[in-house]
Amino acid sequence: MSKDLISIDQLSIKDINQIHSSADAFLKSPHKSNKELANKILINFFFENSTRTRLSFEIAARRLGADVVNIDISLSSLKKGEAIEDMAATINAMSPDFVAIRHNSSGAVELIKKYINASVINAGDGTNEHPSQALLDSFIIKKNKGDLSKIKIAICGDILHSRVAHSNLKIFKKFGTKINLITPPTLITKEYISWAKEIYGAEVYCDISSGIKDVDVIMMLRIQQERMQGCYISSFGEYFKFFGLDHQKLASANKGAIVLHPGPINRDIEISSQLADDRSVSLILPQVEAGVSVRQSVLCFLKNI
Amino acid sequence: MSKDLISIDQLSIKDINQIHSSADAFLKSPHKSNKELANKILINFFFENSTRTRLSFEIAARRLGADVVNIDISLSSLKKGEAIEDMAATINAMSPDFVAIRHNSSGAVELIKKYINASVINAGDGTNEHPSQALLDSFIIKKNKGDLSKIKIAICGDILHSRVAHSNLKIFKKFGTKINLITPPTLITKEYISWAKEIYGAEVYCDISSGIKDVDVIMMLRIQQERMQGCYISSFGEYFKFFGLDHQKLASANKGAIVLHPGPINRDIEISSQLADDRSVSLILPQVEAGVSVRQSVLCFLKNI
Amino acid sequence: MSKDLISIDQLSIKDINQIHSSADAFLKSPHKSNKELANKILINFFFENSTRTRLSFEIAARRLGADVVNIDISLSSLKKGEAIEDMAATINAMSPDFVAIRHNSSGAVELIKKYINASVINAGDGTNEHPSQALLDSFIIKKNKGDLSKIKIAICGDILHSRVAHSNLKIFKKFGTKINLITPPTLITKEYISWAKEIYGAEVYCDISSGIKDVDVIMMLRIQQERMQGCYISSFGEYFKFFGLDHQKLASANKGAIVLHPGPINRDIEISSQLADDRSVSLILPQVEAGVSVRQSVLCFLKNI
Repeated sequence: MSKDLISIDQLSIKDINQIHSSADAFLKSPHKSNKELANKILINFFFENSTRTRLSFEIAARRLGADVVNIDISLSSLKKGEAIEDMAATINAMSPDFVAIRHNSSGAVELIKKYINASVINAGDGTNEHPSQALLDSFIIKKNKGDLSKIKIAICGDILHSRVAHSNLKIFKKFGTKINLITPPTLITKEYISWAKEIYGAEVYCDISSGIKDVDVIMMLRIQQERMQGCYISSFGEYFKFFGLDHQKLASANKGAIVLHPGPINRDIEISSQLADDRSVSLILPQVEAGVSVRQSVLCFLKNI
Repeated sequence: MSKDLISIDQLSIKDINQIHSSADAFLKSPHKSNKELANKILINFFFENSTRTRLSFEIAARRLGADVVNIDISLSSLKKGEAIEDMAATINAMSPDFVAIRHNSSGAVELIKKYINASVINAGDGTNEHPSQALLDSFIIKKNKGDLSKIKIAICGDILHSRVAHSNLKIFKKFGTKINLITPPTLITKEYISWAKEIYGAEVYCDISSGIKDVDVIMMLRIQQERMQGCYISSFGEYFKFFGLDHQKLASANKGAIVLHPGPINRDIEISSQLADDRSVSLILPQVEAGVSVRQSVLCFLKNI
Repeated sequence: MSKDLISIDQLSIKDINQIHSSADAFLKSPHKSNKELANKILINFFFENSTRTRLSFEIAARRLGADVVNIDISLSSLKKGEAIEDMAATINAMSPDFVAIRHNSSGAVELIKKYINASVINAGDGTNEHPSQALLDSFIIKKNKGDLSKIKIAICGDILHSRVAHSNLKIFKKFGTKINLITPPTLITKEYISWAKEIYGAEVYCDISSGIKDVDVIMMLRIQQERMQGCYISSFGEYFKFFGLDHQKLASANKGAIVLHPGPINRDIEISSQLADDRSVSLILPQVEAGVSVRQSVLCFLKNI
């Protein structure tokens, strides 16, 4: 195992179970008396706006006694034309202990990592991966549905461009979870369909009603309104009709099925407001809460490597 | 008493006196040896630019051993169209202990509060309230002029739109302080004049010279240059003539009268530079200093509820 | 010695040696067990974008147990028209212990200092000074080349407008270091040439090949691409030819000569990529690392005055 967390690929089932189990302890008691990361520094090195992920890492680190330094890249010398590699080497020279990086290009974190001795955590790179999100999603699912190998999950939305879906597919494959992918036909190719089947054993559906039949968990993805409309999606109304989730459609899933969403949600586009707020099935807020605990666990896990 | 501080209405005279008395202790020794808020997290959730209030809360919390996380909303996912309620619920799910909120809409903090279990502090909402400012203003006045029930105060400026004036009116009413309001006639209606008299027992004046006669304290308000000129105010020169304060006009007030301003000041528009800098009467900087102590006191007060 | 660090002029050779020697200790063990600045607050009050200097001060302060509050001036009330003096007095009223200030106007820090009781550190003011940078540059040079009085240094680039060069000239003069200045002829006057000779005993050269003959250290300066091209510099290619450094040109310097650059670097404009990355001669990253240690040392030095 590497000192970094760039991709779910790096983690064994044992690693994941260990992270989940320690996250469970943090969820129960967020402030342990021993400040395990005292004198450590986490740098949040974010090239893309993010409130929720930055906040989650910041609070996780502080609960463990670490200091947190935020770099808002729009204010930085990258604007002056500095190469990203030089920026990374500069940060490295200041000897942080952890660097959480978000970047809008797939693979950028892998690149930056080469210049940094600290533990690098991929906090989302383009359409590639967002491993801490997948760790928290699988954590919540396991807590609520038990053994991941015995359940069926549907992931619904713009699968092709979603780093959340990508990291989750990798984690579910490890556990042998059965997967349905539900995606607008404008966002899928025949090649992708065979590939999804081959690699992840996933069935691909082009409407939510058939895709969630008999599933135990439905992960809704966020659509990026600003990029999508008039292009891949004819209208939000049409999107909601075929890919949005509400109580009525949910009835086709297994009894007791739960609903996840990485947030921020677009109400009544991906998910009906009523369903989003129904805490008996929607675990959107428990996901956020567990997100901090899972990130505490990830930081401790990497520290101990 | 609620765990939140949204409005002066929530506070009894006893509460206010307790906050004042503990602020006095913090003013004398800002760093107590026991870090009363160790392991606590304050989130500054600011939808409006603010240096002074954000800084004051941040320093207050840090002096007490708390961690502080700032959310700069212009960088946040609100831009991606997330509902403010969802943003609040997300922050809540991360289990902060205090959330200080500034928002440009009156009532927004009351709305956001519903989604947050932590102690919510209104750090200024639109034209509604700014309770920690009024607590510090009354603190400074009491320290310098004694019993609030025995003095007369003038508040001068755009009363109608000032959250500072509004919170102060509420606090002075509790103590039975006599109040003169001084406001440009373009910013007042007959209805408001009767209402001010009825609710606060306040007399309304349309020029500063008559309004500050016999008062012990003059609170100047900031005019928002960018909104006002050519609209409510004919010119800054004219404004200063009728509503700006200088040593000469101050002579009509009681001997030993003090001058307050919540800052930032517009020199020679609301107040002459000479008067602003005359530390024998202008308490603008002691207000800032006491602001940190009062906010330390507010944080401890809310924690102990 | 003043409680502030505004200019290298304030420091005696003894002061500088003391700062260097304590920086050396911090470089070896960045986290001493006693948190020398516990309960202290550093405010980073930056009017110009900066990642590296802000980060360096922030990490230095946190390693020593201090809290750090960042003021991003573009978000601040300066936009509302507040005078810089009032802003400074406001910050002062909140009783910080250290204020590191960067401003785009020469002399602004000297002005702001008058309103602040805390130790003020000039983190770069216009084209005037950047004393902590010169302290770290001289520290690195001393560590690598020994006695500063026995070596010869070349500084190459836009000397006239460089606060880094200016602070370094002052420090080298104190130690009697021999200096060559290398600058484009469009950026120099006859008056400046005589003045440099008279004050600093410096020889001025208009191409790098002759200017680095027999020197032990070459300090490259950053050119500000956005301001320079088409004005002072005909093209980047031409600039590199006459003022850029590569292995071939470096051969004219003394054997074992080292190369410094305050960063961020413009690759293949000021310095060839190959040379920048050759860690046997390029000390650009050790400069960054030592920067944190020197700033730890500066904070402790000022605290103990």
